[in-house]
Amino acid sequence: MINYPNGKKKTFTKTIQKTDASHRGMELESEINQSNQYYLSYDCAIIHKKPTPVTIVKVDYPMRTAAKITEAYFKVPSTTDYNGIYKGRYIDFEAKECSSKTSFPIKSIHPHQIAHLKSVAKHGAISFVIIRFTTLNETYYIDSLRLIHYIETCNRSSVPYTWFKENGILIQYRYQNPVDYLSVIDQLYFKENNK
Amino acid sequence: MINYPNGKKKTFTKTIQKTDASHRGMELESEINQSNQYYLSYDCAIIHKKPTPVTIVKVDYPMRTAAKITEAYFKVPSTTDYNGIYKGRYIDFEAKECSSKTSFPIKSIHPHQIAHLKSVAKHGAISFVIIRFTTLNETYYIDSLRLIHYIETCNRSSVPYTWFKENGILIQYRYQNPVDYLSVIDQLYFKENNK
Repeated sequence: MINYPNGKKKTFTKTIQKTDASHRGMELESEINQSNQYYLSYDCAIIHKKPTPVTIVKVDYPMRTAAKITEAYFKVPSTTDYNGIYKGRYIDFEAKECSSKTSFPIKSIHPHQIAHLKSVAKHGAISFVIIRFTTLNETYYIDSLRLIHYIETCNRSSVPYTWFKENGILIQYRYQNPVDYLSVIDQLYFKENNK
Repeated sequence: MINYPNGKKKTFTKTIQKTDASHRGMELESEINQSNQYYLSYDCAIIHKKPTPVTIVKVDYPMRTAAKITEAYFKVPSTTDYNGIYKGRYIDFEAKECSSKTSFPIKSIHPHQIAHLKSVAKHGAISFVIIRFTTLNETYYIDSLRLIHYIETCNRSSVPYTWFKENGILIQYRYQNPVDYLSVIDQLYFKENNK
């Protein structure tokens, strides 16, 4: 295969994607929020991002109506960022961006998030992780038990990109629904309904 | 019926309850958190309180490791405070304390919390409200659709205490599991499993 003169065909493709105005500058979290809003507006699913956990230490009341928090600290989250309900099933997932093109560092997911995903799966949840390789602009859906099994047995500090290609499902980008993970869930869990 | 000399038999009973050291000073939220912790530790259910939603405006980094939030504001919650999974079912509820002995003010529940509870119920959730009449020290489980139907049709600004006695289920206080709402859910949704 012949590369472009600068030998960077992939980079060229990326640049085109990045200049797509509708897509530019949107990060995974805001895109998932947009998809959740889309699902909500069409009454397909009720899935929300949980607020960022903070420990509030000091609150001022400069006006009667508006309390102002003047001292607070970020807490390590004890659960995942997203949960809700879809077709009667409890949905629970975590989303992570990864700038490396070759592997995803395991330390990006907190150990209690892993424990949480494992536990909810055992209790009957649809439990998964969304990982975006930002440089490649590819977003994968990965069943959490499959990922956790790999993490627990691989004896490595990162999961190779190729593993996601083999074990994950690429999530399609759509204009109004940028991270359409429910269509992956439909394929995996509700196939009969689609026929 | 003859009252005590000061005519305040009820108050007397309350005082006794309040001097129960194990119970004293605990509020509904912390008791529910304790129950959730109890369910979690016995691997019965995975139900968490969501963090308080805040808008973070300013963050300082006095040390490399510790970010300090120096300006933030409380946001109106768009969902309920608690959700999770129990026996494969999605659980979603809101908890409120009420100091009046005679009625619960409807305005205590935000309109979008009501909309949220209604919506998740429609999607198959076990959706309910826990209301504690603090002065009476009685805690009720109320199916959210039943409460919402009353709120939408009653043409009143509050729900009478007697309505809760008739339509709610009293939640038992237990020492290690102070708000045992899952035993109410077992009765309502998983009766066959208990026999």
